[in-house]
Amino acid sequence: MYEGAIQDLIDELGRLPGIGPKSAQRIAFHILSADPADVTRLAQALQRVKEQVRFCSVCFNVAEQEQCRICRDPRRTDEIICVVEEPKDVIAIERTGEFRGRYHVLGGAINPLEGIGPDNLRIRELMERLQAGTVKELILATDPNTEGEATATYLALMVKPMGLTVTRLASGLPVGGDLEYADEITLGRAFEGRRAV
Amino acid sequence: MYEGAIQDLIDELGRLPGIGPKSAQRIAFHILSADPADVTRLAQALQRVKEQVRFCSVCFNVAEQEQCRICRDPRRTDEIICVVEEPKDVIAIERTGEFRGRYHVLGGAINPLEGIGPDNLRIRELMERLQAGTVKELILATDPNTEGEATATYLALMVKPMGLTVTRLASGLPVGGDLEYADEITLGRAFEGRRAV
Repeated sequence: MYEGAIQDLIDELGRLPGIGPKSAQRIAFHILSADPADVTRLAQALQRVKEQVRFCSVCFNVAEQEQCRICRDPRRTDEIICVVEEPKDVIAIERTGEFRGRYHVLGGAINPLEGIGPDNLRIRELMERLQAGTVKELILATDPNTEGEATATYLALMVKPMGLTVTRLASGLPVGGDLEYADEITLGRAFEGRRAV
Repeated sequence: MYEGAIQDLIDELGRLPGIGPKSAQRIAFHILSADPADVTRLAQALQRVKEQVRFCSVCFNVAEQEQCRICRDPRRTDEIICVVEEPKDVIAIERTGEFRGRYHVLGGAINPLEGIGPDNLRIRELMERLQAGTVKELILATDPNTEGEATATYLALMVKPMGLTVTRLASGLPVGGDLEYADEITLGRAFEGRRAV
């Protein structure tokens, strides 16, 4: 155990996700010998995130104003909403440059084992957005795992009666991957979703 | 790319050692949903380390006063000094409970590839401590790697003429380890250092 302040910092860092005791110690000693201006910038960045970042009132993406940058963008179409689990999924999809509609961030996926049911997600808010009648297609882009699939199935059942097109992102072989190393479920999905060339 | 504050935090976190872009993003979102009091505590711990922690004027371990806890302890003997590379090595040795002498923290090891020579380490300060004549044994506990060995050899040559006992920590098989998985250098050292039972 170190003295006072350095041990306090190691303890605080050790509470962050993915940082074990060894990493916490390594970072603390890095901080100790780092430029004071850099450390101040980090400390301020931490505080500013809590003060300035909030969730978009429309799509629940992270935002610094009442609405996020994507919801404010007049060049995007209101006719397609892409439903994702987390704000980081928005970034991942934006990076493809393929999608010009709006998003809806659920804040997670249905996971009964962790006690997360439909009421813990922003599903009611999604239904309210769909009531307006502008939306023609709903893309379900939840993760391709058990929880994500369950959430997509649940949403599809809820939304189907509203008469809009509901789609799910394609599952299949990752581009640049090796067929031999694909797991059997992914390979099975790739067969199921095969397309004429 | 996220908006403003959250991206700033991801950038700042990504500069820390051992934190890649994915971890930085994960930690930033953890901070976003964390208790504000926890975040304030972390930010303050960062600042306090820079303000309060300094290096002990005697042994260069981390300290909150002019001298560190170990140098201030009157129950420890001044006759043995254990030379280590970093403050974290002091903690590792203290944890064994085997050593009741003082320490000297070099601040690294000789590493010509990174431009670290004897003048960049606290070797002059060590020599000054030894001049007093109180020290009877110097334990060289630098790391058992190339740089640590080079540093130990260099120190042994410097100190030998002063007529005190110079020792090096034993190399050998880690306790609880498996002989079959030991690398050949470690196993060779274990043979060299074999003891009568």
